[in-house]
Order: sequence, then C-alpha cells, then structure tokens
Amino acid sequence: MRVAFQGEHGAYSEAAIIEHYGEEVESLPCESFEVVFASVADGRADLGFLPIENSLAGSIHRNYDLLLQHDLVVVGEHSLRVSHCLIGLPGTRLEEIRTVTSHPQALAQCEGTLKRMGVKVEPAYDTAGSVRLVRQAGERSVAAIAARRAAQIYDMEVLAEAIEDNPANFTRFLIVGRHPVSPGSDAKTSIVFSLDNRPGALYRAMSVFALRDIDLTKIESRPLAGKPWEYLFYIDFAGSTEETPVKNALANLAEFATFLRVLGSYPRFRG
Amino acid sequence: MRVAFQGEHGAYSEAAIIEHYGEEVESLPCESFEVVFASVADGRADLGFLPIENSLAGSIHRNYDLLLQHDLVVVGEHSLRVSHCLIGLPGTRLEEIRTVTSHPQALAQCEGTLKRMGVKVEPAYDTAGSVRLVRQAGERSVAAIAARRAAQIYDMEVLAEAIEDNPANFTRFLIVGRHPVSPGSDAKTSIVFSLDNRPGALYRAMSVFALRDIDLTKIESRPLAGKPWEYLFYIDFAGSTEETPVKNALANLAEFATFLRVLGSYPRFRG
Repeated sequence: MRVAFQGEHGAYSEAAIIEHYGEEVESLPCESFEVVFASVADGRADLGFLPIENSLAGSIHRNYDLLLQHDLVVVGEHSLRVSHCLIGLPGTRLEEIRTVTSHPQALAQCEGTLKRMGVKVEPAYDTAGSVRLVRQAGERSVAAIAARRAAQIYDMEVLAEAIEDNPANFTRFLIVGRHPVSPGSDAKTSIVFSLDNRPGALYRAMSVFALRDIDLTKIESRPLAGKPWEYLFYIDFAGSTEETPVKNALANLAEFATFLRVLGSYPRFRG
Repeated sequence: MRVAFQGEHGAYSEAAIIEHYGEEVESLPCESFEVVFASVADGRADLGFLPIENSLAGSIHRNYDLLLQHDLVVVGEHSLRVSHCLIGLPGTRLEEIRTVTSHPQALAQCEGTLKRMGVKVEPAYDTAGSVRLVRQAGERSVAAIAARRAAQIYDMEVLAEAIEDNPANFTRFLIVGRHPVSPGSDAKTSIVFSLDNRPGALYRAMSVFALRDIDLTKIESRPLAGKPWEYLFYIDFAGSTEETPVKNALANLAEFATFLRVLGSYPRFRG
C-alpha cells in the first residue's frame, strides 16, 4: 500500500502515516497538497494523509477546499502528538548551537526554548527539509527543529526533545481514498454544507442531528469566498451513513441546505 | 492614539490599522502577539490589532488563547482584503527576478504565479521584513512578496500586483483595548464558552440565541488542550450586551455552560 503526504521524508505527516499503518507501508512524498490529491486520484498512491486541524493553529482550510474540488472520500482519521526535536550533526553539543532553522510555525512553537538558548533563528521551507539542509551544509553551529524521525532519516542527532512551549500540540489528519470504506460501528462522518442566510438557519440544521441524538464532534463556520453573508459549515458527527438515524438526518438537512456534501464515514480514531 | 500590531512597518496588520483609523494614527510594531497584548495592557499602546481569522487559512487560535489569558476587551473589528505585491529594487524589470522571498504562507498563496515565473523561492520571517532584507542586500535579481505599503516604506518598487492565486483572501482583525466601548445599534459580540460533554449540549447552547432571534455570525469548536472530549466554542453574534435579549441569552447560557467569557461587544464592520 502506498500513502501520499505533503513534505519530505521525515515530515510529521509521514510520522502520522507510520503511527497509523506501521513501518511496512510505502510513503510517497509530494511537494504540495494538490499533488497529494492528484496522486490518489490517478492511482500513483492508494491513500493520502492530509492534516486538517491543529490544536494550536486551527483548521487547515486549504485541505477542505481541495476535498470539495476532488471526488475523493474520507476513509479514516488519525491524531498525532506533535513534539519538536532539536536536531544537529552527530557529535554536536547543545552549547555549540548558534543558529536554529525550521518552518516558521515550528520556530514560533519553540519560541521560549530558543530565547533561553539565545540563538539566531532562520526560517526554512519545512521541518524535515531543514534537517536535510543542515546535514548538507555540514555546519556544526546550526540545528534544525523537526520530528524525531527526521534525525534518523538524515543520520543526524537529537540534541534536545519536546522543546515546544505548549505540549498540547496535536494534529488531526484525514485519510482520503478513491473508494468509500465500511466504517464499522464506532464511526464518524464528515460533511460540508451551506445554508440560506437567515437567523436561526444553523440552529435548524443542528436540530436534524439533536433530534436524533447524533453527537457533533466538530463544528466550524467559514465565510464563503466572495459571498460575505453566506457560510460553509464543516461538521463531524458520531455515526456512519450506513445507520438509519444518520441517513434520516442527512435527508432532513438536504431539504433546506443550499449545498450538502458528505465527505465520508470512517472508523473513529481511538488513540 | 497609538495602535500596536505584530510585525514590522509595512505589515498587513499595519495596512489594516491605517484602513480603519486613517494615516494620522501612530502604529507600534511588536515582535510577537504577546508583546501586542502586553503593550496594550501596560499602556504603551491604546489599542491592539490582532488577526483572528483568514478566509483561506482559518482561525488564528493563538490570539484566542491570548484573549483568554488577558483582561483586555474587544472594542472593534476590521476586515482587510489581502492582496500580494511582488516588490523589487527601484528600476528592476520583472524579467530580472530569479529569486522570490517572503513568509511561507505568502509564497504558498502565490504558488501559481511563482511557477509561471520559474523563480527560486526562499522563505523569510515575515512579508514586510523580506522587503527590508532585499533592500539592504541591494540584489536586483531578488524580489519579495508583501503589501503595497511595504514598497513605499522601504523605497522599493511594485513589480507586479495581485499575484495571489485566489483573490478571495480576507483577514479579519479584532481590535482590543483596556476599556469596553459603547458599540451602538449595529453591533456584534464575541464570546467563548465550554460545555459538559453530552450529546445535544451545543444544540441547547445555540437554542438560547435562536429562541431570541439572535443571529450567529461565526461558530467554531476547538478541543480543549489536554481534555480530548471537551471543547471550547467561539461564537460571534449580532447584537450587544447592552440589549436585553442578548443579556437574557447570556444569562441563560451561563446557567449550564461550564465556562463563559464575553470578549466584548463592538461596532460591526461594514466594508
């Protein structure tokens, strides 16, 4: 099985793939989220792993947009604890480090540590890529921030672990494929819909779930591009489209939603 | 009046301040969002301008966290159309550009343009800062992506305008101060609350607004750090805490919310 992800080998997305499917899965690095979607659509990959929300940074709307632009379905989810490592050349001591490089978001999440170290920071394109660049430059005074796995892949050394300021750093991934799965009895479903702009419209939409005791696990509104008074709503709820109450709730919602797309039903991730 | 913002002179946040208050306001650049909050809290600035959501990238949860950690109140909002300019040394021709530098998010939002140009991309810490760096280096083959204003400030030239792939790029700012304002009759209110984890809890919370015909303009759920089954909800609605239906709705919500904080009532931004 081949699973596409955005980034280079050693990226957090690749760590999530391995946590979910084990080491034997083949991971396919892609330069952008678009390429992840294209790889799954044209069969170069069986599945794609997409970060969809981070506990500190919020939802990654770009991937919701791409889900709506493509015919892929959500077949699973995964939650990854993001823990940043400081990674340098083998044999380097922490005191030698003068400059730290990584993606600006990783640098920002380790701001406290970096200030205490008194180092210069240098932005880079991504986390794993910054480890590769430090390796190639062979510069002992420079370290990168990335996942532990990136150190192994590029034959580098972890100089410090869990250097993030806030340990409650989780990224949730959606797994996309070409064909729906049978999600079993402990399932979740992700949908996107829009409503007429009138007071109480969202309340009515939520009633189709509440009246059937369907538990919402995520809700988010987002202004529709170019239509300042219309919104897209992203909702995840417990249950699958194979269950009658869910079928009825979605049929009920379709009666008045101006747009409705079921992204997929999938097994709920349980740590 | 002095208004604090995160970034360097020429940043999009500064453009938003000037669009909102005019050229006569004094803007105070801060190195981080924390410093923006601290500057307003200790009186170095009267107000702070905080990006809170972007139409492409989503909510900026960090600023919600800081709002909960501080005693500042929301006194206004602003929506800025984000349009990226390619900025080079005066007299440069577009064909001379070989490398483009900016914040990775700005680079990503202009990916199509950059691919067509066939240039190398180099990540930088922020948009306006990358213009300053190109100016200092004096390198004609390098251009930066930033707001038009950054070109004026650093005496540089706009080589191309509106180079973003998706023009529906808006950032919404919340304006924070030490003292609540009287928001007038066309107001919005922002609140944060949490609920017991039970099916239908959010539906019940929304009913306190729906039963009083109070229109929600934004809703977002976010897992509480370290408490995977509990959520924080961010809601914006039409109306102010000076109006009786809003007072009653919030009193009703407080009966069963496990946490409730009113961030502020403020005049609604109308383009």
